[in-house]
Amino acid sequence: MSYSLKQLAEHVGARLIGDVELVINAVAQLDDAAEGDICFVSSSKYVASLKSTSASAVILREDVVTESPVASLVVENPRAAYAKIVALLYPEHIPSPGVHGTAVIAPSANVSKLAYIGPNVVIEEGVVIEDGVRIDAGCFIGQNSRIGLNTHLYSNVTVYHTCIIGECCIMHSASVIGSDGFGFEFDQGEWLKIPQVGGVIIGNSVEIGACSVVDRGALQNTIIGNGVKLDNHVQIAHNVNVGAHTLMSRGVGIAGSTKIGKNCLFAGMTGVRDHVEIADNVIVTAMSMVSRSLTRPGSYSSNTPIDETRVWRKNSARFRQLDEMAKRIKQLEKHIKDKE
Amino acid sequence: MSYSLKQLAEHVGARLIGDVELVINAVAQLDDAAEGDICFVSSSKYVASLKSTSASAVILREDVVTESPVASLVVENPRAAYAKIVALLYPEHIPSPGVHGTAVIAPSANVSKLAYIGPNVVIEEGVVIEDGVRIDAGCFIGQNSRIGLNTHLYSNVTVYHTCIIGECCIMHSASVIGSDGFGFEFDQGEWLKIPQVGGVIIGNSVEIGACSVVDRGALQNTIIGNGVKLDNHVQIAHNVNVGAHTLMSRGVGIAGSTKIGKNCLFAGMTGVRDHVEIADNVIVTAMSMVSRSLTRPGSYSSNTPIDETRVWRKNSARFRQLDEMAKRIKQLEKHIKDKE
Amino acid sequence: MSYSLKQLAEHVGARLIGDVELVINAVAQLDDAAEGDICFVSSSKYVASLKSTSASAVILREDVVTESPVASLVVENPRAAYAKIVALLYPEHIPSPGVHGTAVIAPSANVSKLAYIGPNVVIEEGVVIEDGVRIDAGCFIGQNSRIGLNTHLYSNVTVYHTCIIGECCIMHSASVIGSDGFGFEFDQGEWLKIPQVGGVIIGNSVEIGACSVVDRGALQNTIIGNGVKLDNHVQIAHNVNVGAHTLMSRGVGIAGSTKIGKNCLFAGMTGVRDHVEIADNVIVTAMSMVSRSLTRPGSYSSNTPIDETRVWRKNSARFRQLDEMAKRIKQLEKHIKDKE
Repeated sequence: MSYSLKQLAEHVGARLIGDVELVINAVAQLDDAAEGDICFVSSSKYVASLKSTSASAVILREDVVTESPVASLVVENPRAAYAKIVALLYPEHIPSPGVHGTAVIAPSANVSKLAYIGPNVVIEEGVVIEDGVRIDAGCFIGQNSRIGLNTHLYSNVTVYHTCIIGECCIMHSASVIGSDGFGFEFDQGEWLKIPQVGGVIIGNSVEIGACSVVDRGALQNTIIGNGVKLDNHVQIAHNVNVGAHTLMSRGVGIAGSTKIGKNCLFAGMTGVRDHVEIADNVIVTAMSMVSRSLTRPGSYSSNTPIDETRVWRKNSARFRQLDEMAKRIKQLEKHIKDKE
Repeated sequence: MSYSLKQLAEHVGARLIGDVELVINAVAQLDDAAEGDICFVSSSKYVASLKSTSASAVILREDVVTESPVASLVVENPRAAYAKIVALLYPEHIPSPGVHGTAVIAPSANVSKLAYIGPNVVIEEGVVIEDGVRIDAGCFIGQNSRIGLNTHLYSNVTVYHTCIIGECCIMHSASVIGSDGFGFEFDQGEWLKIPQVGGVIIGNSVEIGACSVVDRGALQNTIIGNGVKLDNHVQIAHNVNVGAHTLMSRGVGIAGSTKIGKNCLFAGMTGVRDHVEIADNVIVTAMSMVSRSLTRPGSYSSNTPIDETRVWRKNSARFRQLDEMAKRIKQLEKHIKDKE
Repeated sequence: MSYSLKQLAEHVGARLIGDVELVINAVAQLDDAAEGDICFVSSSKYVASLKSTSASAVILREDVVTESPVASLVVENPRAAYAKIVALLYPEHIPSPGVHGTAVIAPSANVSKLAYIGPNVVIEEGVVIEDGVRIDAGCFIGQNSRIGLNTHLYSNVTVYHTCIIGECCIMHSASVIGSDGFGFEFDQGEWLKIPQVGGVIIGNSVEIGACSVVDRGALQNTIIGNGVKLDNHVQIAHNVNVGAHTLMSRGVGIAGSTKIGKNCLFAGMTGVRDHVEIADNVIVTAMSMVSRSLTRPGSYSSNTPIDETRVWRKNSARFRQLDEMAKRIKQLEKHIKDKE
C-alpha cells in the first residue's frame, strides 16, 4: 500500500515537516532505507544513522528534528507512531466472512455471519462466535465457549469447553486454552485426579503466543485481564489471576492460584511459584525464580551471571560452601575483636 | 447433578454427621460457599473459615469435627474425598461411541465400536483403539500405535507410529508422543541424523499436559510408568525411563537416557541432565538443575533466591569472585594462625 | 531389512574383517545384542562389553579392533557409520506421492506431483510445495510460503504466511513457524501491537523439534542457517539469525534480534537475551543465562549446583549477603595490613 506523507501524519497525529505529497510505501531501518521508505528514530543515540539515511521520511521526536536530512513526522512516541504506520502500509490479509465447507459446526452453536471459520475447524454445541471473529484452519472450540468480537485464532489453536475469550484478542498456533489444571491428591498409593471444573476468562485485547497454555480453574476461573500479552511457551496455571496490561516473555510460568498485578513485566523463562501475590508494576528480570510474594513495585532478579565454564566451575563449587565461608568470616572478625 | 449427603458419604466411605437427606449440588470454597454447597477442610489452619462457612456440609478430618457448624462427612483424607465428590457432582460430558464422518481411518486399523473418534481424526494403518477410548477432533495416530482402554486424547494430540499408550490415560491438546529423539553425530562438517527407531511405551493412568512431548527411543523404548502425571510443557527425551507415580510440574525437562525413580516429585522448570539416575522418592524443588545422579531419597535444590535487582546485581557480581573470596578467607586464617 | 556385511561395509566405507556374507538385520547395544545384530563401539571404554558381546558384527575404530571377538567394520567414526546403517536397516515408511482427498489446496498453490499431502492438510494461495516433500495430516501452510525439496513436516505443524523452508528439513509435530514476534509499545496506558511484517527463512537440512517456535521478523526476516538442529520446546524470537550447524537442546530460548554463530552448542533450557552476539563455536552448558555477547569461542556456564535442600537453603540465604561478605573480607585484610 502507498500513502502520502500527509495521510500518514494525520493517521498518527504528527506535525509534518517537508513535502506533504511525498509517497511512502514501506517502512525500513535507518541504515537500510531507500526511496519511498519511512523510518523511525527512537532516541538521539541514532542521530548518526539519521543524518545519513536514504529514507524518504522519518518519524522522530522534537529533540532530534533539526538533525533530520529528510521529511519528518514529529511525534511524542515515534515507536508507537511507527507501529500505526506499519499497520496501515502492510494491511493484514482478511478473509471474507463465511464458514468453510469442511468446518464442522454443531447445530446449537451460534456463529456470526460476519465471522470467518476456516477449513477443518470444529465448533461444538453451545459455542458463541461473535462478529468479526476469524478462526483459521484446524482450530477446535469446545462446548459452550465464547469467542468475542474481532478475535483472531491462528491455525491449530485449541479452546476447551466453557472458556470465555474477549474482544480483539489474538491467539497463535498450537496454543491451548482451558486444559486441566495440574491437581492431584495422593491416596492409597496413587495420584487421584481432582477434576478441574472451573473455566477460563480472558479479557479484551489479549495476545497469547504459540504453544502457550492457560489451564482452566480447579473450581473457580483462571482469569487473564484486559490487554495482557503473553509470548510463546508461556504457562498460566489453574486459578491464576493476571492483572491488566501485564506482559510475559517467552517461557514464563505462573504456578497455581498465584495473583499477578497490573502492568507487570516478566522477562523470559521466569517462574513464579504457586499461591503468591505479585504487586502492580513489578518487573522481574530473565530466568528468575520468584519463590515468594513481591508486595512492592520495583525490579527483581535471581540467577547467576554467565562465565567461562572453567571459571564458573570453581565459583559454583564454592556456592556449596557459602554458609561455611560466612561463619569463617565471623570467626575471623571475632578473633580480631578479642585481640583488641 | 444433585446427591443426598447420604449418597456422598457412601461414595467416599465417610462417617456422616447431620441430615442424611440434605441435598448437595455443588462444591465450593469455605469462604464462598452457599446453600447446597459442600466444602472440604484440609487442615486445622482453616478452622476460622470453617466456623463461619455458609456451606450446607463439609468434608473434614476427625480432629476438627467439633468445630463444624454444619453437616459433616468425616474421612481420613478430605482432599481425596473432595476429588471423588467433584467427579460425581460434575460428570464429564461423554460423547456417544462412534466414528465421526470426517475422520480418516485406515482399512487395517482396528477401532473398537465402543470408542469415540471425533471430527478430522486421522488413524493410520495397523492402529488399535480399544474400548471406551475417546479421541477428540484433529488428533493423529500413526501406524501401528495402540491406545488402551478408556484413554482420552483431547483435541489436536499427535501420536507418532509404534507408540503404546496404556489404559485410563489422559493426554491434553498439542501434546506429542513419539517424536524423534535429539540424536546427531558430527561428521564431515555437519550433523548426521541418527535415526530414532525405538518407540514409546506409556503405562496406565498416566496424564500428559498440554504441549508436552515424549520422544521415541533411539533404539529401545522411552518408558513412562503407571500413574505418572506430567504437567504442561514437560519434555521426556529419548530412552528415558520414568518410574511409576512420579509427578513432574510444568516445564520440567528430562534429558536422554536418564532413569527416574518411582514416587518422585519434580517441581516446575527443573532440568535433569542425560544419562543419570534418580532414586525413588526424590523431591526436586523448582527451577533446579540436576547435573548428577541422586542416589538417595530426599529433597534437592539449586538456584538462587529472588531479590531486588539493585541488590542482586551486587551479590551476583560477587558470585564471580567466590573462589577468590574463599582463598582470601583461608589466607586470613593462616595469617592469624601463624601469628599465634 | 537385511544386508550382508559386505553391503554395509561398502555403504559406510569401512574396512571389513570377517565373513563378507554375514547377514545383518538389526542394530543393538553391545550388552543386548543377539545373532544378526550389529553394534557400535564409540570408545575403548566399552572394551569389556565388546569382548563379551553376542552381536554378529561390530563397528569400531582401529584402536580396539584387536579386542573384537566377532566380524568388524573398521571406520574413523563408528557412531556416524552406525547412523548410516540404522537408516539402511530401518527404512522410513514413505507414503506414495499424491494429495489426500480431504486436503484443502488453494487454486493458486503450486504443489509438486511428487509431493505427499496428507489428510486434512490446508495449503493456502500462492504456496509452493517442491518435489519429494511430505506433509502429514493436519498441517497448515499459509499464503505464499514455500517448502523445499524432500522436506518432511510431521502431523499438525503450522507454517504461517511468507515463510521459506529449505530442502531436506524435518519439522516435528506442533511446531510453529512464522508466528508473530513479541513486539509492543506502551502507548496511552496500553500495549500497542507492532505488526510483524518480516518473514522466516530456514536453510537446508534443518530439524525443528516438537512444540518449537520460530517467530517471523518484525520487519526483516528471522533466519535459520543450513544444518541447524533444534530440539523440542525451542524458541527463536523475531529477527534472530542462527548460524549454520548450530545445535540447541530442549527448551533453549533465543530472544529478539540476537545473532548466533556457526557450530555452536546450547545445552537444554539455556536462555540468551535479546540484541547480543554469540561467536562461532561457542558452547553453553545447561540452564545458563546468557545476558551478554560472547565474542570468543569457548565453553560458558551459569547457574548453581544441585544440593540437598536443607544444605542449599543455608547457602542460598548467604547468596544475598555475598557483597557484604566480600566487604568484610576486605576489611579484615585491611585490619591485618594496618597492624603490620
